[in-house]
Amino acid sequence: MALILTFLGKGGTGRTTIAIAAAKKLSSLGQRVLLVGQDPGPAFGLLLGAIPSSDHQEIAPNLQVVQLQTTRLLERGWEEVKSLEAQYLRSPTLKNVYGSELGILPGMDSALALNALREYENSGHYDVIIYDGSGDQATLRMLGMPEILSWYIRRFRKVVEDSDVWKSISPFIQPVTSAILNVSWTGESFAQEPTKQANTLLEQGKAALADPNRVASYIVTSGDLAALATAKYLWGSAQQVGLTVDGILLNQTPVTQPLAAEFEPLDVSALPSLSSADGWQPLIDALPDFKKASQAPRPITIDIPGRQVGLFLPGFDKKQVKLTQSGPEITVEAGDQRRNILLPPQLAGQSVKGAKFQNNYLTLSL
Amino acid sequence: MALILTFLGKGGTGRTTIAIAAAKKLSSLGQRVLLVGQDPGPAFGLLLGAIPSSDHQEIAPNLQVVQLQTTRLLERGWEEVKSLEAQYLRSPTLKNVYGSELGILPGMDSALALNALREYENSGHYDVIIYDGSGDQATLRMLGMPEILSWYIRRFRKVVEDSDVWKSISPFIQPVTSAILNVSWTGESFAQEPTKQANTLLEQGKAALADPNRVASYIVTSGDLAALATAKYLWGSAQQVGLTVDGILLNQTPVTQPLAAEFEPLDVSALPSLSSADGWQPLIDALPDFKKASQAPRPITIDIPGRQVGLFLPGFDKKQVKLTQSGPEITVEAGDQRRNILLPPQLAGQSVKGAKFQNNYLTLSL
Repeated sequence: MALILTFLGKGGTGRTTIAIAAAKKLSSLGQRVLLVGQDPGPAFGLLLGAIPSSDHQEIAPNLQVVQLQTTRLLERGWEEVKSLEAQYLRSPTLKNVYGSELGILPGMDSALALNALREYENSGHYDVIIYDGSGDQATLRMLGMPEILSWYIRRFRKVVEDSDVWKSISPFIQPVTSAILNVSWTGESFAQEPTKQANTLLEQGKAALADPNRVASYIVTSGDLAALATAKYLWGSAQQVGLTVDGILLNQTPVTQPLAAEFEPLDVSALPSLSSADGWQPLIDALPDFKKASQAPRPITIDIPGRQVGLFLPGFDKKQVKLTQSGPEITVEAGDQRRNILLPPQLAGQSVKGAKFQNNYLTLSL
Repeated sequence: MALILTFLGKGGTGRTTIAIAAAKKLSSLGQRVLLVGQDPGPAFGLLLGAIPSSDHQEIAPNLQVVQLQTTRLLERGWEEVKSLEAQYLRSPTLKNVYGSELGILPGMDSALALNALREYENSGHYDVIIYDGSGDQATLRMLGMPEILSWYIRRFRKVVEDSDVWKSISPFIQPVTSAILNVSWTGESFAQEPTKQANTLLEQGKAALADPNRVASYIVTSGDLAALATAKYLWGSAQQVGLTVDGILLNQTPVTQPLAAEFEPLDVSALPSLSSADGWQPLIDALPDFKKASQAPRPITIDIPGRQVGLFLPGFDKKQVKLTQSGPEITVEAGDQRRNILLPPQLAGQSVKGAKFQNNYLTLSL
């Protein structure tokens, strides 16, 4: 199973350079590494000193590189959609729409990149996949997608099934589906098979993100005030999508006592700049051991006998965290992220009796 | 009508600082300015020296500021969806889903921000709206959304109407709709009203983007090689979504002859850094006149009698531009953007007889 490693931080703090250095380091240690660049612009190739393409290619022993191209990924994805349609529909309708016509809408970059990461991980060809994304909220939205999409499916499936509209439509489903579908489904099981397939994918994504030995992140910052504040903000926001942050990389800035205290209990490493004289080696040597087992606090811990849910939310104060229980689940809002907490069966449907915010933890008593 | 102004460029080149300086400049000249921050993190407020919120507030005469919060925008949008549903459905199904439960999926930030910009523009309260977004591909995807979404609607509407599935379903539409809808629609006009409303909005968005006096952009870059290459790439990519780029802002870098030649025919301005001694004034004084009529090349020009389409694509070479005519329209692919060119009726359906790439222009002969 591959480790997916990504770097968060304010733009211009050197995330891409550090991602490249990490790829060089891990591959030189014998790990089979794939370095994935998300931004289609020329900066990635310039910093890499190679010309990456949308097909992965080896640029050094054990080191493969790919620069994602959403237009390509969309074309491939569209072919899969068409073959799925042909599988289910008696008379496919999409065959005359070509992948090469499709424009890119907001969100497609993230959804297709996440799917590409999943496929690279499944291939079994890599020990480490380093994802150089935008490193901001957009990367968090991408990684949070399996959990949030599962919530939408779970919640709206119930709403639809309980609705009068569904009751009005369902008698018509059977005659309609038998006219258009290749397979015969009754009203209730309509769309069950595709939903089951989607749910399996989403559950796999959630399981990967919940395991810090499968998806890990580090935050890169300079000593600049805005970069440091962004680092702290992203540290808290990452927890909201269930992403563990394993350490802080201080780019071209020495580690001081107050700085280390800001990011307690994480390891803070100082990194030197790339110099034309010494090349990559000093930077590579200063990087932490990315493969060591994570010691970082987990985003969520559920204590069933104690009836408590602990949420690690560093960098936020009490006023910045909002707790609601308007729907069937508990919703935690912080950092412009919303997380719906699906409780284990033993605690499901319980209301929150108390909430305490202390030492970066929000503790809910049920 | 307000001018929407945005700044593109690599992260860390000072886009937000320049957006703030532009807001200060224009408001001091008596323009009613709204400064819109997209990223929910703390950097925007730190650089601004104020605490912005998700409600717009005046921080100086003529200068209002808002920091978008997607969770808030989604809640408001959801209320509108529910009231639309209640308007059309006899028995609304969504009333039990609360806006405060909804998580954010990739793409929602952009879609909701674009809608917020539209509403601010429509309010008539502002002469200039300065949008401080991520300044990269994501901002371009957002601004390109009306054109691309119109294409999807146009293309798939036709596919659906021509499909056997539609022919199988349509006899059932009338009984079903009369059971669930408040309004009576025949099969053909089903969904016509909402589609018409959506199309009007999208056409308005396209018209705004096509007018350089309504939506304008500048590219910010430092003298760093990766930043300069990114600037050039974004210059070309912006054309692909129909966004005019009016000038280049060289942050803390002098204008040299080779640099100016790189961005010919655009104006290139050198900007000083913010200094604690002199504050914002030197930077404000060095900014170009954002309200002057645009002299920049237009992304697309169509010469009907000459049967030619000219596409301005700076920064790309011939090999990086792909032309296809697989569907009913001409598709131009460059910079991981795809543009489908809807030709005027006089040229519609014509195939491309020749394509020439010269002096940053791709000229298609029909």
